[in-house]
Amino acid sequence: MTIKDIARLAGVSVSTVSRALNNHPDVSEAAKEKVLEVVEKYNYIPNTSARELGKSSSDNIGVVVRGMSNPFYTDIIAAIGSRIEKAGYTMVMQQIGASDDEILTAARMERDKRLQGLIFLGGKLDYTKEQLTSINVPYVCCTFSNKYGTLDKSEYSSVCIDDNQAAYDAVQQLYSRGHRRIAVLLSGSKDGSVSQVRFAGYERALKDFGIALDEQLIIEINSYNIADAYKGMQYWLKKEIEFTALFAISDNMAMGAMKALKEAKKKVPGDVAVIAIDGIEASEYINPVLSTLCQPMEKMGSEAVKLLVDIISKKKSNRHVTLSTTLRAGETLE
Amino acid sequence: MTIKDIARLAGVSVSTVSRALNNHPDVSEAAKEKVLEVVEKYNYIPNTSARELGKSSSDNIGVVVRGMSNPFYTDIIAAIGSRIEKAGYTMVMQQIGASDDEILTAARMERDKRLQGLIFLGGKLDYTKEQLTSINVPYVCCTFSNKYGTLDKSEYSSVCIDDNQAAYDAVQQLYSRGHRRIAVLLSGSKDGSVSQVRFAGYERALKDFGIALDEQLIIEINSYNIADAYKGMQYWLKKEIEFTALFAISDNMAMGAMKALKEAKKKVPGDVAVIAIDGIEASEYINPVLSTLCQPMEKMGSEAVKLLVDIISKKKSNRHVTLSTTLRAGETLE
Repeated sequence: MTIKDIARLAGVSVSTVSRALNNHPDVSEAAKEKVLEVVEKYNYIPNTSARELGKSSSDNIGVVVRGMSNPFYTDIIAAIGSRIEKAGYTMVMQQIGASDDEILTAARMERDKRLQGLIFLGGKLDYTKEQLTSINVPYVCCTFSNKYGTLDKSEYSSVCIDDNQAAYDAVQQLYSRGHRRIAVLLSGSKDGSVSQVRFAGYERALKDFGIALDEQLIIEINSYNIADAYKGMQYWLKKEIEFTALFAISDNMAMGAMKALKEAKKKVPGDVAVIAIDGIEASEYINPVLSTLCQPMEKMGSEAVKLLVDIISKKKSNRHVTLSTTLRAGETLE
Repeated sequence: MTIKDIARLAGVSVSTVSRALNNHPDVSEAAKEKVLEVVEKYNYIPNTSARELGKSSSDNIGVVVRGMSNPFYTDIIAAIGSRIEKAGYTMVMQQIGASDDEILTAARMERDKRLQGLIFLGGKLDYTKEQLTSINVPYVCCTFSNKYGTLDKSEYSSVCIDDNQAAYDAVQQLYSRGHRRIAVLLSGSKDGSVSQVRFAGYERALKDFGIALDEQLIIEINSYNIADAYKGMQYWLKKEIEFTALFAISDNMAMGAMKALKEAKKKVPGDVAVIAIDGIEASEYINPVLSTLCQPMEKMGSEAVKLLVDIISKKKSNRHVTLSTTLRAGETLE
């Protein structure tokens, strides 16, 4: 549909359409109304972005999501998407499996999609400088930082919670209710992911509270997947190790574990108290409602874009933002 | 990092690097190994896509997701993303609110992002020809069709389940277990969305089974949101209308409703049997496990991309694909 079609349908001249669309004073109200009626009916979009087409550089911001279908990312992605759009950029997203290499994916994206910047949603905490030489645009680590890596703080930005402290707080919630046999359900204790930091927080809490670390209470599943958490918990429960509480490092994993607990006739929270970290929407609608430390998902997403856009537009240099969690009391603590 | 850096770090000449990277026979195994070692260490990406940069048209496929943060879309988006990538295109996604206009968003995207094609994930079923004149690229309606609109079948593609039949099947599951007072939880009965088709299936089933439609059993919430379903159900339960079964048109809404039922001390399935449509992962991990008719999410996403790419590459013309649902027995039927 062109400006000529509009003119024909509205029964006015092309120059009248042009004047009406540009809010020119020299056009009658009646003509303007006719034009706008046609514009609305046909969803006509004035070609204001012809300039855009001539631009040599792209306005793409790449988002690499590690861990496909993780519900924890849904709200963050929505926030990232809307904020990127508002800032006048285009979101180009790629989702990769938990064992895929996000740096390699990002480097390919940077070149193929001519990115202005990158957001890593989920990823490893042990990047080396060498690994990152393939990335030549500013990037933000969202939901994690480079705690175990060798990157200089000035070379990247990050936005995340204090994962070690969140885990500590979760264990404290259980400890303060009298629990001493506290199992931990995690991906890995030395995997260089957020799982490792949260495990370190669990360890630190136990130490502070004078509880010896019991290897038997560590349930490693090498995954963040809900089905794997369910199966891992099922398997571990068969060992019949005595415990009264479970700290799951994510809501999703807690949901998987709770299904296994229910099937093993363990009452939550009567027999086993459960607490997690994340605060996804679904865990608020399960029975019993999951007690968890909620991450500010929307804020995390919009903050990541803000950091990146500030760097791209040379307003600010790399920064590191730590956000707070809030406890959702839920019904799984006792 | 350039080919020169590789040469320096590997201690070979630039032409040796070039030969090694292009699998040229005229290079020693030792030199090749040295080069590949450096390439791997620094995650170097050979510049094979320089050609890409010179292309005048973009390879963008737009995905407009209507209904932000709907967990039903998570797996479909993952499938769409990976399939678009495999086909050599770039996914440009935009998420819009439930009351936003997806056609307007798509028309803007088409122009600003120079799209080759479009996928609508979720949307209205009553598009008119006029509304769609602003879209000039091929498009696929994913999870819905144009049942109530005026588009010619040859003008667009679609992939969805038979929503009317799925609703019919859901009601039949309840009817066959003796239920006659079957409430329906839906977004709207005349809203031009999938909700309307599923409601029509509910109506058709009741008619076939000789049950009179009772307006009191229709719970309209004007939303697909889990929190709205919870609140809507809470409000409706206060009316104390007699019922023994609930058909929720989506898993997410069923989860919201089940929380309200639990709080109202209604046992599921003892007091109220529940069935839904969708089959999201979370509803498999709630207590009790939701009985639902599962949509083939992954297949739906990949099929949508396949249809679109076939049209873009002029291999095939517009097509309409209907996929089947499968019953997840769950624990909410009795």
